[in-house]
Amino acid sequence: CINGDRLWARLMEMARIGATAQGGCNRQALTDLDKAGRDLFVQWCRAAGCGISVDRMGNIFARRAGRDDVLPAVITGSHLDTQPTGGKFDGVYGVLAGLEVIESLNDAGIATEAPLEVVVWTNEEGARFSPAMIGSGVWAGAFELGYGHNRADKLSLTIGEELARIGYLGEAPAEARPLKAAFEVHIEQGPILEAENRQIGVVTGVQGIRWYDLTLTGQPVHAGPTPMTVRRDPFMGLAPILQRLYALAEAHGPWARVTFGDIRAEPGSRNTVPERLVVAVDLRHPEQSVLDELDAAFRHLVEEEATRLGLQSDIREEWHSPAVAFDSRCVDAVQQAVDALGYSHLRMCSGAGHDSVYIARVAPTSMIFVPCEQGISHNEAENAAPEDLEAGANVLLHAMLHMANS
Amino acid sequence: CINGDRLWARLMEMARIGATAQGGCNRQALTDLDKAGRDLFVQWCRAAGCGISVDRMGNIFARRAGRDDVLPAVITGSHLDTQPTGGKFDGVYGVLAGLEVIESLNDAGIATEAPLEVVVWTNEEGARFSPAMIGSGVWAGAFELGYGHNRADKLSLTIGEELARIGYLGEAPAEARPLKAAFEVHIEQGPILEAENRQIGVVTGVQGIRWYDLTLTGQPVHAGPTPMTVRRDPFMGLAPILQRLYALAEAHGPWARVTFGDIRAEPGSRNTVPERLVVAVDLRHPEQSVLDELDAAFRHLVEEEATRLGLQSDIREEWHSPAVAFDSRCVDAVQQAVDALGYSHLRMCSGAGHDSVYIARVAPTSMIFVPCEQGISHNEAENAAPEDLEAGANVLLHAMLHMANS
Ligand SMILES: NC(=O)NCCC(=O)O
Ligand SMILES: NC(=O)NCCC(=O)O
Repeated sequence: CINGDRLWARLMEMARIGATAQGGCNRQALTDLDKAGRDLFVQWCRAAGCGISVDRMGNIFARRAGRDDVLPAVITGSHLDTQPTGGKFDGVYGVLAGLEVIESLNDAGIATEAPLEVVVWTNEEGARFSPAMIGSGVWAGAFELGYGHNRADKLSLTIGEELARIGYLGEAPAEARPLKAAFEVHIEQGPILEAENRQIGVVTGVQGIRWYDLTLTGQPVHAGPTPMTVRRDPFMGLAPILQRLYALAEAHGPWARVTFGDIRAEPGSRNTVPERLVVAVDLRHPEQSVLDELDAAFRHLVEEEATRLGLQSDIREEWHSPAVAFDSRCVDAVQQAVDALGYSHLRMCSGAGHDSVYIARVAPTSMIFVPCEQGISHNEAENAAPEDLEAGANVLLHAMLHMANS
Repeated sequence: CINGDRLWARLMEMARIGATAQGGCNRQALTDLDKAGRDLFVQWCRAAGCGISVDRMGNIFARRAGRDDVLPAVITGSHLDTQPTGGKFDGVYGVLAGLEVIESLNDAGIATEAPLEVVVWTNEEGARFSPAMIGSGVWAGAFELGYGHNRADKLSLTIGEELARIGYLGEAPAEARPLKAAFEVHIEQGPILEAENRQIGVVTGVQGIRWYDLTLTGQPVHAGPTPMTVRRDPFMGLAPILQRLYALAEAHGPWARVTFGDIRAEPGSRNTVPERLVVAVDLRHPEQSVLDELDAAFRHLVEEEATRLGLQSDIREEWHSPAVAFDSRCVDAVQQAVDALGYSHLRMCSGAGHDSVYIARVAPTSMIFVPCEQGISHNEAENAAPEDLEAGANVLLHAMLHMANS
């Protein structure tokens, strides 16, 4: 079994880097704080006897040799970057649970047949640089390296520049090698395990995600002398679009999700009807066919409202992560670990995208969830119980051991 | 009569300072470009024999002596600052028409009893620094000088700092002196004169304006795993608030106006339900009692929607400019000038706030409108016909002469 106290202590130590006043974390990808978090992780891994390699996307691989070190590795990993108002566990838990697996094997003097690796994937959150999961995405071949390097933040700084600046533009190719298996343990980021009172989520897949920039363009005119009836006001179009999209999600059952995470008005002057609104739209559904239906309905209703109000509309798809079904042997390995350890569990689909979505394209992959308080994540108040985090890491240990020795 | 060609040529020369690709102007208050525009105006006024004084708010007074130079002056003026995507005429026309009145009197060798002054008021637009009309507002005693100096832009630069930086923090007190009369000629910034095919608007007053920052606060949670039913999403509140406010305006007849000029989402991350939306709301009506009704209804419906959705709401009033009725003698002077010159006209209320709103608190004041193309203003496509601009300046000349000699 793993050492829950050490895991918790390290989670708390990592959380000091970028700690916010409200008890959360702001350690966005490739900032100075992200560098500090990476440095701390590398220092811990070196102390645990791991070899470190960094690839061209800044993904960090900490490796514990296997008895037969040329066998494909069993890897686990997640991310250290956070949302601007993020919590202490999202991603970080998966990285430090992986390290804890290695530390525990070291403590017990247990060798594995295949090597084990713990990976830190770059820019999972997608908060500073869009899209999310870009480090694992490039590594798994979903994106070109050049695309990855050129992604820019709101200040037009690119991933490539920022990797070089913080000293994490590594030499290793950002390309998948043959792997025996890949696992990722993560907080659920939703309320289901807690509501059902289960300790472990055996994750069978990840819902499909589509990100868009919706642009509504009207005519900028003066707020005072311009009669309401002659305006072409993007806000007049936004209101029914918001309402119809929320209604659309509702009509597609409890698993459909629609989120507007960001919005910008141009020129953004109090007494001028905006020329343009740019809205970030996030649509999700576990079934790809339903997600595609939502996509079509979204495009149709935007077109309809824009036409009705004399606005121009544009929908640019920023990211599409199709629904994923995880490898059945990996899911079974997790299920067997849960059964052996006697934890309560639920088989479930992930609502959030994770690095495992891309890893699943190149290796047998699955995930393990643990509950988080009230399901709250992407929030400074994000919290999880030490005993649940310990349980998840134990399941990870067992599943990795099983795959590394089989 | 005034020289329409010279007026037009100067409008076009001023428009080169901050000219935009779409043929408009971006010469926001107290930027380097605003300084260049001010310098050009001062140079023209000096060449026309005027004395220049600048006050503590950066308001510029160009003075042509009267035969009896201790008499209270007749002033006219407007502003040289523009919206970020502004046009060539808004404000600038009023300033250069005033200068044209002086040039024309010089050309004709006509002296007036009372002195004449042309004024450039600082930061009329309210685009860079809120509220609008702050230069005339401080001068007329509506705001303290310290309040004026401390107003900050989005980068936290203040009016006081920026005035000093561009060399327009003058020595004269920013305080009203006794005046005989004040006039302001301006493009209508609305479509009514054009629609009614009239050349001059005899402006009898200005509608009341209220500016607010509406803040809706919910709970930031992850866009993926969080069921729609447990969210407290400020966008869910925004949609009905937009629709009910538009409906409210409609229910209060053709003169009620509601505009959402700017919006900000916090933290503004694609895959996080925003914790907070901050929306700039602009409500207007020519009758103060109706504006007050709109204010109450707005507060009530926001409260109602926020409560229904478990959001917190806050309404901060950023600015309130009550409805204004202009001085009847000044309105008559304009009416007589129009009648004498034989221009078609309409008596009307201004939909936009103008510096004259504040000047009207300390001096007999009125305004003159000319049509602008399709009523479009606060837009780079803003346009006006040279013959209408000439007509407006002629009305200004006659009205100023009448008041200066009576
Ligand atoms: N876990 C997580 O926050 N992933 C980012 C991608 C997503 O929005 O689902
Ligand atoms: N004319 C003008 O743009 N004034 C600014 C104040 C307002 O918004 O009405």
